[in-house]
Amino acid sequence: MENFTFYSPTFFVFGKESENQTGEYVKKFGGSKVLIHFGGSSAKKSGLLDRVEASLKKEGISFVELGGVKPNPRSGLVYEGIELCKKEKVDFILAVGGGSTIDSAKAIAAGVLYDGDFWDFYSGKPIEKALPIGTVLTIAAAGSEGSPDSVITKEEGMFKRGASGNAIRPKFSILNPALTQTLPPHQTAAGITDIMAHLYERYLTNTKEVEVTDRLIEALLLTMKHEGPRVIADPNNYEARANIMWAGMMAHNNSCGVGRSQDWNSHNIEHELSALYDCAHGAGLAVTMPAVFKYVMNHNVMRFAQVATRVWGCQMDFEHPEVTALEGINALQSFLVSLGMPKNFSELGAKEEDIPKLVEVLCRGDGRPGSITGFVTLNEDDCTKIYKMMV
Amino acid sequence: MENFTFYSPTFFVFGKESENQTGEYVKKFGGSKVLIHFGGSSAKKSGLLDRVEASLKKEGISFVELGGVKPNPRSGLVYEGIELCKKEKVDFILAVGGGSTIDSAKAIAAGVLYDGDFWDFYSGKPIEKALPIGTVLTIAAAGSEGSPDSVITKEEGMFKRGASGNAIRPKFSILNPALTQTLPPHQTAAGITDIMAHLYERYLTNTKEVEVTDRLIEALLLTMKHEGPRVIADPNNYEARANIMWAGMMAHNNSCGVGRSQDWNSHNIEHELSALYDCAHGAGLAVTMPAVFKYVMNHNVMRFAQVATRVWGCQMDFEHPEVTALEGINALQSFLVSLGMPKNFSELGAKEEDIPKLVEVLCRGDGRPGSITGFVTLNEDDCTKIYKMMV
Repeated sequence: MENFTFYSPTFFVFGKESENQTGEYVKKFGGSKVLIHFGGSSAKKSGLLDRVEASLKKEGISFVELGGVKPNPRSGLVYEGIELCKKEKVDFILAVGGGSTIDSAKAIAAGVLYDGDFWDFYSGKPIEKALPIGTVLTIAAAGSEGSPDSVITKEEGMFKRGASGNAIRPKFSILNPALTQTLPPHQTAAGITDIMAHLYERYLTNTKEVEVTDRLIEALLLTMKHEGPRVIADPNNYEARANIMWAGMMAHNNSCGVGRSQDWNSHNIEHELSALYDCAHGAGLAVTMPAVFKYVMNHNVMRFAQVATRVWGCQMDFEHPEVTALEGINALQSFLVSLGMPKNFSELGAKEEDIPKLVEVLCRGDGRPGSITGFVTLNEDDCTKIYKMMV
Repeated sequence: MENFTFYSPTFFVFGKESENQTGEYVKKFGGSKVLIHFGGSSAKKSGLLDRVEASLKKEGISFVELGGVKPNPRSGLVYEGIELCKKEKVDFILAVGGGSTIDSAKAIAAGVLYDGDFWDFYSGKPIEKALPIGTVLTIAAAGSEGSPDSVITKEEGMFKRGASGNAIRPKFSILNPALTQTLPPHQTAAGITDIMAHLYERYLTNTKEVEVTDRLIEALLLTMKHEGPRVIADPNNYEARANIMWAGMMAHNNSCGVGRSQDWNSHNIEHELSALYDCAHGAGLAVTMPAVFKYVMNHNVMRFAQVATRVWGCQMDFEHPEVTALEGINALQSFLVSLGMPKNFSELGAKEEDIPKLVEVLCRGDGRPGSITGFVTLNEDDCTKIYKMMV
């Protein structure tokens, strides 16, 4: 195991009607003037925003609103949020929504206390300070409610890039599984896929003998395998929603990824798809993961055979481990398709003729050296072949 | 799943030579005058205390020492520590040792800022403030390095009782698996048993459909099953030590126990044994758990059959689930015995004739109502029968 530090200080408030405690937690963590950041109209229509605002008012906390966050959140709204916070002297950012809203809120929180362009943080500058952030989560997917990470798309060039820092970890996150019951099935399935991708990206390691984190990742994958079909069959199944929601946080606060190298090539390869076609990130991952895994499988066939047997219930072929490894990758893809996820470019809305452009941005964009690295280093030729496998 | 809050803000520093960073972290969390609290002479002889003190000096932090913590830590040394801290104007408590040392440090930290008798906290008063605490862990067992809990034995009456509160959560914990390589095999095995008990106490729940936490607990049990024999066979196996050490923290910071009722009857029943006979808590648990589990098995036989199949690899007997359930309990006991743990009263040094006294203190001591409660409520008759099963 490699040396590591682990720090996950977010205060989680989990359960039914927990959004009514929002004001209490904003106060506990020092907020007095709040920016409420959210996405489309559903937060308003569902009454969620009203409940959150009522709980703020109850604590005497004032607020301004900024809606309009889109999936694959854009830099434009971040600049707007930063200006608004400065003008209104906001001291706390409250994200009400999913990963896109939380990531946008994190970018605003860091940008308000920075004199330069916030995009510097998404080009590699460490985030050292930010306004405190709280979240009210409405979809189990990105894990941003318990992570130090944020992903934003820069409209100029359509670069989708990440930033990270303990300063943008939420002070508190409110997780009410019931809020996810009204999600369309496609979004629920895309969220499940994203959670599973966060687990696979950690599973694909070059560090030896990390049994404890292997087992924790498998535990969360087994949970998704069990609860995914239950929640697609019955969107109102609170218990299934609750299991998925806690698994989604645990999958990405890194408690099951410490002390080991990680992959993240599937995420990188997918980011270009959702940036160009504006598809759901999870849907893109459903198409990307099987292709990437088949391409890199022989780098460590036993790793893929292990997840195939322990998670997907495949019988180990001890004479031909590669058969078991491939069976596990196919089982993952069949599972995601059974939830309603796409399996190829055309179902995703992607186009074969765009592959050179995707590869160019992926491997060369924003200063990259002609390759991406992780479990295996992939150059432009490798990435071209992987995108072609998805067609 | 039941509503819950989860908060685990400890900063973990994990890996080889990490104790040399102690001074840096004491400074980061505001310490300028430290009480170094430790157990026997091994911390001095091994050079660990020298390394820790050198790292404090490097940061210009002054300190006083208080050694002498014994397993099953006593109230007497806590009172002494509180007086010493007040006299020396200590502002930070550093525990260098295992769970006993950390628990004693937590009691001192809470007692220094309290005008009354610190034992009030161990009789049910909530801990609201405490001096900041850091730990340098030397045995994987109690999980106190990442928990809000402390267990102390009151010498007057030999009551062993627990206290809890976020104020006594360590600000940082330094975990160097190499420090555990010199432990005697019996202590290593007792630590593994304690970790497994923390997992079983959470597994035995009356809450339905808590898949995610079931799976996480099973993951950590599987890790102990795999790594336990490896570390007994080769005490210098760093990777096995590392896996056990992270599993020990995760087993008790409650990330895998949220949203569900828990048991803790095995711990309560064992506490009387280690209080009376001063045996290792883990050794006591190795004798206690199989008896308790057999006694309560029929309360939910499927729960025991589940852990038997998922962790112990038993084939499910679908016509007679109780056969599988019992097979799993026996597999747990055989496993603990294979690590060198005792299996009955005589191996533990306990005496059958003491059972009435044990039951009296367990069920009536310190204001208890004649029973203990958890997965199942156990009255004096139940507890008598359970202790007799251990003979």
